[in-house]
Amino acid sequence: MPGSDVANMSSQYVFAFVPGEADGAAEDREALGGKGANLAEMCRLGLPVPPGFTISTPVCNHFSAHAGGYPDGVSEQVDAALERIGKHLGKRFGAVDDPLLVSVRSGARSSMPGMMETVLNVGLTSETLPGLIAATGDARFVWDTYRRLVMMYADVVMEKATGVEPEDGAGIRQRLERRFDRLRDSVGAERDADLDAEHLENFCREAKDLVHGVLGHPFPDNPREQLWGAISAVFRSWDGKRAVQYRRIENIPDQWGTAVNVQAMVFGNLGADEKGRSATGVAFTRNPATGDPRLYGEWLPDAQGEDVVSGIRTPYALDDASRTDANRGLPTLSEVLPAAHAELQRIRGVLERRYRDMQDVEFTVERGKLWMLQTRAGKRNGPAAVRMAVDMVAEGLIDKAEAVRRVEPAQLDQLLHPRLDPAANYGEPLARGLPAGPGGAVGRVVLTAEAAEKRSTEGWKTVLVRHETSPEDIHGMHVAEAIVTARGGMTSHAALVARGWGKTCVVGCGALDIDPGEGEVRVGDTVLREGDVLTVDGTTGRLWARELPLMDVDPAKDSEVSTLLSWCDELRRLGVRANADRPEDATRAREFGAEGIGLCRTEHMFFGEERIRPMREMILSTTPGERENAVAKLLPYQKEDFRGILRAMEGLPVIIRLLDPPLHEFLPHAEEQITAVATALGVPRSSVRARIDELREQNPMLGHRGCRLGISYPEITRMQAQAILEAAAELLVAGVDARPEIMIPLVGHVAELRDQKRVVLEAAERVREQYPDVEVPVIVGTMIEVPRAALTAGEIAGEAAFFSFGTNDLTQMTCGFSRDDVAGFLSQYVERGIYAADPFQRLDQDGVGQLVAYAVREGRKGKQGLEVGVCGEHGGDPDSIAFCHRVGLDYVSCSPFRVPIARLAAARAALV
Amino acid sequence: MPGSDVANMSSQYVFAFVPGEADGAAEDREALGGKGANLAEMCRLGLPVPPGFTISTPVCNHFSAHAGGYPDGVSEQVDAALERIGKHLGKRFGAVDDPLLVSVRSGARSSMPGMMETVLNVGLTSETLPGLIAATGDARFVWDTYRRLVMMYADVVMEKATGVEPEDGAGIRQRLERRFDRLRDSVGAERDADLDAEHLENFCREAKDLVHGVLGHPFPDNPREQLWGAISAVFRSWDGKRAVQYRRIENIPDQWGTAVNVQAMVFGNLGADEKGRSATGVAFTRNPATGDPRLYGEWLPDAQGEDVVSGIRTPYALDDASRTDANRGLPTLSEVLPAAHAELQRIRGVLERRYRDMQDVEFTVERGKLWMLQTRAGKRNGPAAVRMAVDMVAEGLIDKAEAVRRVEPAQLDQLLHPRLDPAANYGEPLARGLPAGPGGAVGRVVLTAEAAEKRSTEGWKTVLVRHETSPEDIHGMHVAEAIVTARGGMTSHAALVARGWGKTCVVGCGALDIDPGEGEVRVGDTVLREGDVLTVDGTTGRLWARELPLMDVDPAKDSEVSTLLSWCDELRRLGVRANADRPEDATRAREFGAEGIGLCRTEHMFFGEERIRPMREMILSTTPGERENAVAKLLPYQKEDFRGILRAMEGLPVIIRLLDPPLHEFLPHAEEQITAVATALGVPRSSVRARIDELREQNPMLGHRGCRLGISYPEITRMQAQAILEAAAELLVAGVDARPEIMIPLVGHVAELRDQKRVVLEAAERVREQYPDVEVPVIVGTMIEVPRAALTAGEIAGEAAFFSFGTNDLTQMTCGFSRDDVAGFLSQYVERGIYAADPFQRLDQDGVGQLVAYAVREGRKGKQGLEVGVCGEHGGDPDSIAFCHRVGLDYVSCSPFRVPIARLAAARAALV
Repeated sequence: MPGSDVANMSSQYVFAFVPGEADGAAEDREALGGKGANLAEMCRLGLPVPPGFTISTPVCNHFSAHAGGYPDGVSEQVDAALERIGKHLGKRFGAVDDPLLVSVRSGARSSMPGMMETVLNVGLTSETLPGLIAATGDARFVWDTYRRLVMMYADVVMEKATGVEPEDGAGIRQRLERRFDRLRDSVGAERDADLDAEHLENFCREAKDLVHGVLGHPFPDNPREQLWGAISAVFRSWDGKRAVQYRRIENIPDQWGTAVNVQAMVFGNLGADEKGRSATGVAFTRNPATGDPRLYGEWLPDAQGEDVVSGIRTPYALDDASRTDANRGLPTLSEVLPAAHAELQRIRGVLERRYRDMQDVEFTVERGKLWMLQTRAGKRNGPAAVRMAVDMVAEGLIDKAEAVRRVEPAQLDQLLHPRLDPAANYGEPLARGLPAGPGGAVGRVVLTAEAAEKRSTEGWKTVLVRHETSPEDIHGMHVAEAIVTARGGMTSHAALVARGWGKTCVVGCGALDIDPGEGEVRVGDTVLREGDVLTVDGTTGRLWARELPLMDVDPAKDSEVSTLLSWCDELRRLGVRANADRPEDATRAREFGAEGIGLCRTEHMFFGEERIRPMREMILSTTPGERENAVAKLLPYQKEDFRGILRAMEGLPVIIRLLDPPLHEFLPHAEEQITAVATALGVPRSSVRARIDELREQNPMLGHRGCRLGISYPEITRMQAQAILEAAAELLVAGVDARPEIMIPLVGHVAELRDQKRVVLEAAERVREQYPDVEVPVIVGTMIEVPRAALTAGEIAGEAAFFSFGTNDLTQMTCGFSRDDVAGFLSQYVERGIYAADPFQRLDQDGVGQLVAYAVREGRKGKQGLEVGVCGEHGGDPDSIAFCHRVGLDYVSCSPFRVPIARLAAARAALV
Repeated sequence: MPGSDVANMSSQYVFAFVPGEADGAAEDREALGGKGANLAEMCRLGLPVPPGFTISTPVCNHFSAHAGGYPDGVSEQVDAALERIGKHLGKRFGAVDDPLLVSVRSGARSSMPGMMETVLNVGLTSETLPGLIAATGDARFVWDTYRRLVMMYADVVMEKATGVEPEDGAGIRQRLERRFDRLRDSVGAERDADLDAEHLENFCREAKDLVHGVLGHPFPDNPREQLWGAISAVFRSWDGKRAVQYRRIENIPDQWGTAVNVQAMVFGNLGADEKGRSATGVAFTRNPATGDPRLYGEWLPDAQGEDVVSGIRTPYALDDASRTDANRGLPTLSEVLPAAHAELQRIRGVLERRYRDMQDVEFTVERGKLWMLQTRAGKRNGPAAVRMAVDMVAEGLIDKAEAVRRVEPAQLDQLLHPRLDPAANYGEPLARGLPAGPGGAVGRVVLTAEAAEKRSTEGWKTVLVRHETSPEDIHGMHVAEAIVTARGGMTSHAALVARGWGKTCVVGCGALDIDPGEGEVRVGDTVLREGDVLTVDGTTGRLWARELPLMDVDPAKDSEVSTLLSWCDELRRLGVRANADRPEDATRAREFGAEGIGLCRTEHMFFGEERIRPMREMILSTTPGERENAVAKLLPYQKEDFRGILRAMEGLPVIIRLLDPPLHEFLPHAEEQITAVATALGVPRSSVRARIDELREQNPMLGHRGCRLGISYPEITRMQAQAILEAAAELLVAGVDARPEIMIPLVGHVAELRDQKRVVLEAAERVREQYPDVEVPVIVGTMIEVPRAALTAGEIAGEAAFFSFGTNDLTQMTCGFSRDDVAGFLSQYVERGIYAADPFQRLDQDGVGQLVAYAVREGRKGKQGLEVGVCGEHGGDPDSIAFCHRVGLDYVSCSPFRVPIARLAAARAALV
């Protein structure tokens, strides 16, 4: 038996399989490839597999390294295996009388669909042809089989061996196809089936002449020459251009090599005899679209495998469980070939028990007898993956950990948003953009945030269509069903806000020509006006100017999702919290399983109509006294906000970040708004404009923001701390277990944290005096989002109750990428492989990740048991979550809608 | 003899000194303080020092730790020392007959001027007074001496011992002063000298009554009580508020403690007798302003030390070498007291031979006899420091290394710019701003870069006055004598450019109200118009609206500077290169000793009239073909630029950085300029405007710039590489040893460098074919200025011939500070000690420095012997240069005018 170090067992290169016994098994993927290992395994299980053998992957390496040479002994081992196949079938390869034909197929360790070569019907020669005609009693079938061999072999083995790439359309395959077309035309045949044996025999002769003439070699008429030609062609295709490119992209090592599977031919197109009809089909042991635990598949009578998948004929359903609209009324396999169907059902059970997973199989029925040609783990969509995983645990096939391993986070994501039916064809969309917020939505077009708010109070469902969005649009964005922008990338303001809220969003939809003045959006000849219906598919980035049906799913109420996630919670070490700024978001996060709020931003709280005014007064203040007055007006609003979110998260920690963005963001930019502010504040417009100019920054990202504001204007920090702690105190007095924690943003130097902490502690002292009967927790931690903070984490930890990595900003500063500006060239960077992935979506582990790991290590040295989490966009990305697990973070925090994904990803990370 | 661990020698706390012998020596600063150690040393040298003793610093620590208690044995040791003094002088402390009086002074290891207490005339009581009158024959003098004791002692010893801070003006000292003023008024005395012995005797009685009444204790009439009160007061003052604050600021450890010096009183105000006059003075052993190697100083007859420095009387010159305008005509010490003067000259020689440095001494002549009261290393200005260091090596006093240690980089800097006379008083300036470019300049006001260029061709010397500057102003800035801006900080565009060129510059001069439209600058009531004269002092940040004289110095021609710098070159390990973009700058850098160009920026090269047009065409191109055309037009200009600089630096490396800034910087912003560009390019204005909008970025610092441009538009990289290598090839053909190196900016990922290197190597291949007879060096390295590059330095080193740290950008990204935006709050940060220094001026070693050190280590692991330098602003900062030396950089590169500073700083770093 070959083990994983088969390469050292120099003697055995060829592994035979016949029903009931096999040299290999499912575990031998490395040596036998996926296909070969599974064929061997099916034989071991006693399933009806056309007998054959696998030439192992070390031979491929030898072949590559020795310019097409083979190790000693391979030839003899192939002969022996052919002998064994023949004995099993009572046939012989090259025999004049009822000859054995074989297929020669590649089979790498990892599936590389369409990348490598296949040759069928190997072994037909002028000598063996008459024997096969006699054995099948079907000359037409045999000549057609020979035709296929000649055409395929000339292309795959003979032409490709020359290494010369023919010009498009000038290859031998295309020439032969054209000749064949001409033949059909000349005899008036509409389909191949209209050609008779003589037509085909003549064509074969012509074809062989053409091959000889074009390629300079005669078509081989010797079975062994055909066989070795085909085997070498498959090995050679491992180093073919397409295969090499594919491996680069999929990160498959070159030295894996491919195996070659040589297997007795069976024919689904052989027609019927007394033992039954011929047919071919593909099946899944469970429904790959729904997870329904019954056989699902398609078949066609008198056909070869490629006919089922080519789409030329409409395939039939296997049985009632497989019926779709398309094949309703067509005969089922259970009706036409009930014995074969029953055998397939039996095999389904055998395979699932053996593989403990849904299998995707290919089968052929040759004159009533079922043959299994392939089995492999089947691909499935999200809902099916979840259902199968949960069902299989109930069926005792797998344990909970395996169930968690079986569901990819992206599969779970499909269940978390109302969505368009991915299988439906809605025709050409109105426009395409970037899929920034997954899910589907239908609503009426509005062009301003104000209109969105107004219309939604009138009961409209709206789609907010903007050139781009800004913080001033927040309230309109919040009430809209979906957001569409003409500009911006996957990390633009609209995209970030939408994903935070789990809202459908398409950005960078350049075809939209938006004219808010005219109240129009033009897309080519189409003109949309306010109130027109738009369907937005945020999963694919497409828009339609009509209403399309949505599939609605509520993951929290989906019992299979709940079950799976409860297992995740048992298995994961990493905590999962949510980023939420409002009580309703917090409530949703809690429903989705969040164990706290990892980031409650306070800046959105200042954008309401009645709040923005004192905020602007505060900003326009010229003395600390004026500022103190304005800030005092904001206190009650802030307190109310904090009371709401702390109540919603009762018993769980809520990390509240103090004011972070540059003050400029809160000031009006349009002339009429400036006038309004000036009037409201009773100051001249010129002074408002002057202050706006003064606050404008070249690089606001690196400017006066975060704790730098709190250091310049301690009144703001004081007010926010007071609002948080008073809100908590009032709740505690009322018996609500409020657990606020205060987070200082943009700290780069321990002295900044020390300064702001002092202001918070002073405010806390006053709150304690005010509410002497309750113990208000005063926990002050810091964001780690400036590289310098990570570099000096040991020192900073001395002053911090916790760290929370703001990986968005940390990525911006570490990579030197402004999220707002790099969208254009960053996509180019990812396409060209400069970065493997967008570092704003997947944490750049080599760069930014080093800083994170360093800061965790130094931070915990600086303070034993320091709590460390991440609250950037990356907290919801599975790959990044796995990194967070590895470097020992305590939790990740992400948008509420990503919480289930994070729970799954955290569990999967723990299982690695 | 006490050594450095005197604290363990518990037995000896008191160290006596009498001329000819002393318990201590100059080396004992730690135990005896600076003053005590030097008094002991002068005694050892046999100089005339009033005998005394020093109570050592461990006593101070004991005193602090034991609430004012003294270690066992101190009292006995003091008694013994008093005995010894008395024996030397033939007097006795507390004797009724010719009593010994003493002074009690502090003396810490490091000078803390004015921070601690002094009590003079200790030992005068009702019992000893008559004896002193008899001995001096001057009752008035003795009563005045007693008056001074009472007033000083009541304040320093009695009131301060209470620990109660009197309100302003309500202290015992002020009350006594007021009473004394009243006495003078009542007797009509204009000066103290007009009061006679009786007046003073009466006042002493009244004063003692007042002291008793106010402080509740009688003025002590016992010599020993006075002495111990004074000693304790000095020790107590070590923990006084002012002293503690001073130590915090100067980083002096609390545990250093102070020593107390008790010394026999001598009187410069005793008047004359047969042995001669009395006098007092201060002297430097060389001129501290010029370095002239002759005694320099001032004196006053019949005076005490404070009279010389208080400025009430104009002091006299010691001799002709000390004469100034102010004391011309007044008698010199050499005239009045020739013997004392000769003795002082002798002592000058003794001290310089012993201390091997210029000394600052205090002396008193009591009735013809010279007494030395203090000696210490003298402070000096830059020119003096350099001259002394060089002279002393010639005199054999010090070696070259010591000479280099003696000159602070800031002192050398004073010699590198024409400057206003720092000693002159030009009255109140017109306005003040930040001293952004040191040196002085006089010129005529111009308000636009165009005017600066035009006027300078007309022969004007101009001062360019702008609100702020931008790259468009570069040509005007270059021709101006000085640059003044109303806005911006020490690292604003104007400041950076000016320092790079060594140009005088004042920025952030908020008082300037500039109206270029009206052609006016208003400062309060003053209105400046184009052509008005302005003097700019960039060393202090001041402006005057008239012509002031400048002191011009050319360091390259200053032989003492050249000598010193040649010694630096022998001693330093770190290389010194210059940042220079133009041949004339390169030539200057070479004259200043630069060993190559560490950074030649190419962006300034695109701003000339005939260059900006193809540059703008290039930017406005919409296809690679158009871009290629435009770029091709730039090639000849670039080539010419590179030829010039490579020729100027023949035989030395020239690192040329490819295009770095965002393209937006090259586009016009004013409406008329947009029109001009559109016309010139033959495109509609709207398309120019649209492209400008498109290129505008939220955070251009982190946007599409550096190698990101070259990756998007490889045509640019190709053209620049071609221009550099063709220029080099042509020079090599002509026999000029051109040594270009190509630097890729803003690399964050090794793949970026790999991409750009490939483009350069392809261009090099074509140049090689074109110039087959010469071997053009193709050396491609990278800036390390993005934190990610530092974090992945090992990988990047694999592709890089060299690293050059761009510490400006590295600081921006590591600290999250946009240089353009943080000026306002960063100064606040430095004032409040959040950052110890502006990290753009002094490398932030704890944060940014960690990345630098890490990248050097990993880079050299990745490539053995990798050449690593720094080319940010920090390359010219001495503290940062010391860091660069420590972490093993190969060189620093700074602006040409900083090259001498860097050579000095590098040598000093090597001497640590």
